[in-house]
Amino acid sequence: MKLLEFKFSLPGWVEGFLRERGSKFSTVEKRMRFVVDLARRNVQKRSGGPFAAGIFDEKGTLIAPGVNIVVASNCSILHAEIVAIILAQKRLGCYDIGAGDESHYELVTSTEPCAMCLGAIPWSGISCVVCGARSEDAQSIGFDEGAKPPDWQHAMQKRGIKVVQDVLRPEAISVLKEYARGGGPIYNAGKRR
Amino acid sequence: MKLLEFKFSLPGWVEGFLRERGSKFSTVEKRMRFVVDLARRNVQKRSGGPFAAGIFDEKGTLIAPGVNIVVASNCSILHAEIVAIILAQKRLGCYDIGAGDESHYELVTSTEPCAMCLGAIPWSGISCVVCGARSEDAQSIGFDEGAKPPDWQHAMQKRGIKVVQDVLRPEAISVLKEYARGGGPIYNAGKRR
Repeated sequence: MKLLEFKFSLPGWVEGFLRERGSKFSTVEKRMRFVVDLARRNVQKRSGGPFAAGIFDEKGTLIAPGVNIVVASNCSILHAEIVAIILAQKRLGCYDIGAGDESHYELVTSTEPCAMCLGAIPWSGISCVVCGARSEDAQSIGFDEGAKPPDWQHAMQKRGIKVVQDVLRPEAISVLKEYARGGGPIYNAGKRR
Repeated sequence: MKLLEFKFSLPGWVEGFLRERGSKFSTVEKRMRFVVDLARRNVQKRSGGPFAAGIFDEKGTLIAPGVNIVVASNCSILHAEIVAIILAQKRLGCYDIGAGDESHYELVTSTEPCAMCLGAIPWSGISCVVCGARSEDAQSIGFDEGAKPPDWQHAMQKRGIKVVQDVLRPEAISVLKEYARGGGPIYNAGKRR
């Protein structure tokens, strides 16, 4: 029954973008630059919100990219981080990509995860989260980040998940500002007050 | 590119279950009984974790069901609540099902949402959350619920989202216990300590 299934795809331009950039990123700054550029392309192509993410293995190889496709897919769940987690788990054939061996997977996200994406991280098997812009940067253009636990960084670290913040933050902020200047839709902005 | 898309379906038996039960549920207890029975069937069919959910409109009509399909779909995101939100948004053609008119949608879930699902609720357009079992009931059989903000009920209510707890809690707990007795997999149980 069609109503009991769901499918999404990344925007068509992503495949060419990946070919152009390759899949090896030897430093955390290179990985963040890839992710910030992916977010900027998502804004310029008007294919979604100003957010992108990627999951990389311990050698810096891209396992799966993600961009925000909430509006295009009519699905509030499809934030960039969630898309990257889903596609990485599909590629690796496992709902817990950190299980069972010594592998280490890093989620690099252009903006700090919202409450939903934060909650998704411990279930995914990721062992490190790297953030560009901060929540307040997304809030400053009108996005709502949700109710996060106070000191969520410490809560992650207690679970063995490392958190690194402010990597290329100015570049990540510039994508948020470009989106706001272009009049992109600011959805879910705390409308139920 | 196959690696840039994802598809899921509810288990095959769900369609028959929906035909059997109909789609009108005039009281919150009837809606919860439907959801608890859906969770129990998911356990008995061994198609996923002991969790189910449904989204209903203000007349008590089922808009979309959800069951936990994390293991079968190799996807840690596909908790029952997330599946129901995705399918309801698909059916209604909108990423924010509460937007734009006076409609009211209720999420009924057999167990209180985990941190990820809680975070997803404000983005979905749902205006009421009804819970059966409590987090501690899921934790007592070994499931991890994640780091929720203290007093999350109040945080939801501040956003205009009503929270109702303990509807048919004993029946919902009995499904969790049936799953544990049957030796169902307890995944993501805080393994990264």
